[in-house]
Amino acid sequence: MQKNQKAIHFQDTVLESGFWQARQKMNAETTVYAVWERFKDTGRFDAFRFDWKEGMPNKPHIFWESDFAKWAESVAYIVAKKKDAVLEKAVDDIVDLIEVHQEESGYFNIYFTVIEPEQRFQKRTEHELYDAGHLIEAAVAYHEATGKDKFLKLMMKYADYIENVFMLEKSTNFTTPGHEEIELALVKLYQATGEKRYLSLAKFFVDERGKVDKRISYDWVNERYAQDHAPVRQQTTAEGHSVRAMYLYCAMADLAREYGDSELAAACATIFENVAGRRMYITGGIGSSHVGEAFTIDYDLPNLTAYTESCAAIGLMLFAGRMLQIPSETPKALFADVAERVLYNGFLSSISLNGKAFFYENPLEIHPELLKRDASVLDAFKGRLPVTERKEVFDCSCCPPNITRFIASLADMLYTCNEDTLFVHHYMAGKTKTVVNGSPCDIVQKTAYPSEGAVSFTIKGEALATVALRIPYWCTSYNIVCNGKTLEPAQVKIVNGYAYLPLDRGQENSLTLLLDMPVQLIEAAPEVQENAGRVAVQRGPVVYCLEGVDNGSLLRNVRVRKEAVFEVVSDETFGVPVLKTTGTVPKEGAENGGLYRPVTDSTKNVQLTFIPYFGFANRGESEMVLWVLPE
Amino acid sequence: MQKNQKAIHFQDTVLESGFWQARQKMNAETTVYAVWERFKDTGRFDAFRFDWKEGMPNKPHIFWESDFAKWAESVAYIVAKKKDAVLEKAVDDIVDLIEVHQEESGYFNIYFTVIEPEQRFQKRTEHELYDAGHLIEAAVAYHEATGKDKFLKLMMKYADYIENVFMLEKSTNFTTPGHEEIELALVKLYQATGEKRYLSLAKFFVDERGKVDKRISYDWVNERYAQDHAPVRQQTTAEGHSVRAMYLYCAMADLAREYGDSELAAACATIFENVAGRRMYITGGIGSSHVGEAFTIDYDLPNLTAYTESCAAIGLMLFAGRMLQIPSETPKALFADVAERVLYNGFLSSISLNGKAFFYENPLEIHPELLKRDASVLDAFKGRLPVTERKEVFDCSCCPPNITRFIASLADMLYTCNEDTLFVHHYMAGKTKTVVNGSPCDIVQKTAYPSEGAVSFTIKGEALATVALRIPYWCTSYNIVCNGKTLEPAQVKIVNGYAYLPLDRGQENSLTLLLDMPVQLIEAAPEVQENAGRVAVQRGPVVYCLEGVDNGSLLRNVRVRKEAVFEVVSDETFGVPVLKTTGTVPKEGAENGGLYRPVTDSTKNVQLTFIPYFGFANRGESEMVLWVLPE
Repeated sequence: MQKNQKAIHFQDTVLESGFWQARQKMNAETTVYAVWERFKDTGRFDAFRFDWKEGMPNKPHIFWESDFAKWAESVAYIVAKKKDAVLEKAVDDIVDLIEVHQEESGYFNIYFTVIEPEQRFQKRTEHELYDAGHLIEAAVAYHEATGKDKFLKLMMKYADYIENVFMLEKSTNFTTPGHEEIELALVKLYQATGEKRYLSLAKFFVDERGKVDKRISYDWVNERYAQDHAPVRQQTTAEGHSVRAMYLYCAMADLAREYGDSELAAACATIFENVAGRRMYITGGIGSSHVGEAFTIDYDLPNLTAYTESCAAIGLMLFAGRMLQIPSETPKALFADVAERVLYNGFLSSISLNGKAFFYENPLEIHPELLKRDASVLDAFKGRLPVTERKEVFDCSCCPPNITRFIASLADMLYTCNEDTLFVHHYMAGKTKTVVNGSPCDIVQKTAYPSEGAVSFTIKGEALATVALRIPYWCTSYNIVCNGKTLEPAQVKIVNGYAYLPLDRGQENSLTLLLDMPVQLIEAAPEVQENAGRVAVQRGPVVYCLEGVDNGSLLRNVRVRKEAVFEVVSDETFGVPVLKTTGTVPKEGAENGGLYRPVTDSTKNVQLTFIPYFGFANRGESEMVLWVLPE
Repeated sequence: MQKNQKAIHFQDTVLESGFWQARQKMNAETTVYAVWERFKDTGRFDAFRFDWKEGMPNKPHIFWESDFAKWAESVAYIVAKKKDAVLEKAVDDIVDLIEVHQEESGYFNIYFTVIEPEQRFQKRTEHELYDAGHLIEAAVAYHEATGKDKFLKLMMKYADYIENVFMLEKSTNFTTPGHEEIELALVKLYQATGEKRYLSLAKFFVDERGKVDKRISYDWVNERYAQDHAPVRQQTTAEGHSVRAMYLYCAMADLAREYGDSELAAACATIFENVAGRRMYITGGIGSSHVGEAFTIDYDLPNLTAYTESCAAIGLMLFAGRMLQIPSETPKALFADVAERVLYNGFLSSISLNGKAFFYENPLEIHPELLKRDASVLDAFKGRLPVTERKEVFDCSCCPPNITRFIASLADMLYTCNEDTLFVHHYMAGKTKTVVNGSPCDIVQKTAYPSEGAVSFTIKGEALATVALRIPYWCTSYNIVCNGKTLEPAQVKIVNGYAYLPLDRGQENSLTLLLDMPVQLIEAAPEVQENAGRVAVQRGPVVYCLEGVDNGSLLRNVRVRKEAVFEVVSDETFGVPVLKTTGTVPKEGAENGGLYRPVTDSTKNVQLTFIPYFGFANRGESEMVLWVLPE
């Protein structure tokens, strides 16, 4: 029997200690301010004054309002937890400008008012609806956080206008957006306002995709780039621009849930499995090619040139979270497993340890000397490699505010529930006060995850008969103590990766989950030819890497014994332990041994320090290798 | 004491049987005709009529006369061995057209007469002197082969004009050619005519390089591209466009020899060592990047995107051959070792087994599915990979006639001599009748090399007191029988890789060299990070690879035991044996085992057939891997 799976909103949870509390604190106190400063520097706030003229600096870009919007959404999530008058005023000031410059019709766009007003809704490529979507998301969040409704009303008016010109009048030059985003935003607007027509409009945009707009976004791409290659219900693989793709799939999952659309749900599941099973790096990064910032083909996951945009990582977590909200008999751990893989690796790598700098791309291997590779041509013509260190702002700076809003609303990932079962998807220390099926429910999680594998819960709720704890994909051995009783694995009912445990309704239930967290050597399937003959080091959900700053150079040569003993050393720099072991490297270099020579087993021991992948490039430009040789 | 090292001209040698005789036969009977046909099809012969007009097909390209010239040089080398009236007439007809269209001044160029006459010697980029160089080489070769002197005289007249405008008047818009070639051609013209001013002109072009023309060839390159980054005597690394580089280094070596210029000789040696020790694939391929068709940085040798142009491979063999002609006390085997590496691998791969199709690029790894990689963009915007099968002609078809002329004159590589010592650099079955130090000298080599390691010689010559046999770099165990006497290794004087053996002057000396030729597993130095943890299979000078057509797919996963026993199976397809052994591959693919999973040693045995690398892509498009995993 399909059961509704309700999300427990992040606002019901306070992360009180541990790994993520520290990061949320930095996000609220440092990162959101750092992004703000860089956005002010670069004209992204001034653009809302609508007074840019030819010859002035900082010409407004077509998606600058989306940069502000994601930042404002971050502010909403932050101030919902803790008042910050400075941040709130910054948003209010821009909302006032939006009110001033919004047209009578409801239309609001900086670029297509200030620079190309005659091209309004003429160019499918140009992100107008993407901007609208992010503004809507921000308005909904800001209303929920502050109770203020001005921003929300302005955006409802804009949404009404969009409904009118796209769906009713059909007076625009395209039908579906070149960059998806508005679809999922309209679902949020529907949820915030109860206005079903916003949901219908989201459905319209999703349903029409792949049918009408065979006009492609750009002149160098084909239909796959913007997921136009087939009607969405017929799509089976993740295609094209990876952020566009994820935002579409989020909306598809939303609509599958809202409309009980099993065909759409099945398409989402098929696409998710394609990503998780064939098109995802071990870090959870997706979109392996910079050409179109796109998915390529199954198992094509090069490390050195991995594009794996930070926004795509966030998009995959959002998609996974929505998959857990589609009615189902028993949720599958796959979705939270994938989200966890992204969270601690390919997402977390996108922000520096000091919270001020960001990766747009998150490569899995770095050899700084290769930046000098094409020595005989000018820089613009050299072969392309990802940047090797994080930056504070980009020309296309979509990622930084996406990161801040995601961290601020992180606890959205933690729990879902159906009528009588609480699903625990992720392990983070925090307190949750919520309502399940009309009854109050208190959940307390205590854990040093991901540094350690022990998690304690107290759970109390009249409605709750069962708690289902995700046994993470990486865990092969665990113990559960439920209200004082140690359960043998054979006594635990495991369905689709969740351990179902009985609760005493209305009582304070005490549970402890003890996940063994040994260091594991992981191999990729042989189809991922890039990694053939190599292994990754993982502990719990955290994937590790070797950096030159700790381990010298020529790191692709490092061998780790399959039976290696790793010393797990707690480390304040990264907030999770580093791993130390002894490995080997070849004894003779080219100068003494020759460029090509008969194989010898002449090696020497080296002391190795593996750091969490997410922490690479925080100590200067450095060689970095994730997939190492086994011995 | 430095001794002159004289080349023994290929015309003194007949390859009578064996591996190379078969290839020379195919070259003379098939390949040279096939290239001719494709050059006719594409207008390269018609261009010499100088009647192209706007709107006509086959607009003459700036270096089409060089395509003809290399082809004509091939014809010269072929007809020198065996009369072929058809080929000879084809050359004569074009020479007649050259006579008709050469200007009174001596200038001859199709493009800059028919299309841009006002730009004559104005554009350093545009290959005019490169064309002149190849025409001069052809004219010299044709004169030597046929005794006809019309072509030679026409080109002497052109060379005189070039001397005048470049060196004396300095009336041109650049001083040194954008693409080297004329320098080495002028040395040949000097040798053919005895006119020292041609040698002086070659020296002028070489000496001025890196000094005056800081105007770069193209607007997307820097000085390194055309070896303009420093005066040639100060250059220490192989830089820029790899064919340009090799032709320059050939001329530098020629001039070092002709002028006894030890500074230039030292620069050549340093550059050669940089190539051989740091910038060369195991196949002898050079120029690893398609960006500028260029050398990149030390040890940067990617397999999948290896550019390794066929002309660069030929250029490296020509450079190596010239290094052996620079006066020296004792020649170094390094030069012939490198030439042999190129010859049996990165050069020989450039021509199909049927002699009709060619590679311009010679990659070391092929995964055909990756051609579909950037699925969401139009073809022109996809990431670049080398072509996977040979073609009969290219828009830029410099390689095919370079291959034909090289094969036809192959025996140039075999021998050099000084006053009393014959140096045997390569092992090919053939008979040589030459003159050493004024005395006739007969050399007979009998061998099934490179299929087998036994080589028998009879050598007779009044001047010869010593023969020096190269012990190839790949050989660690050998025996020598000298005039019936088996020499223990300790009895053999080895200097710089050559075994020096005494000869009875004037007697027929009988020698046998028995090179053990086991299958070897070769590793790259750790600096070549691309190949870390991988091994290549080599037997004698021949490097092997795995192809999909024999071994299925996902070949990067194949493991070969370090102690593997290889069955050496003679094979008519390739002309050298194929190697069969048992290896392992992972048991579980992604579908059953998961995309990422704890390391297992779950493997299954597979029967493997290694074919000579040079023979890849002769049986349809196929996966190909050279560097495999050891076990």
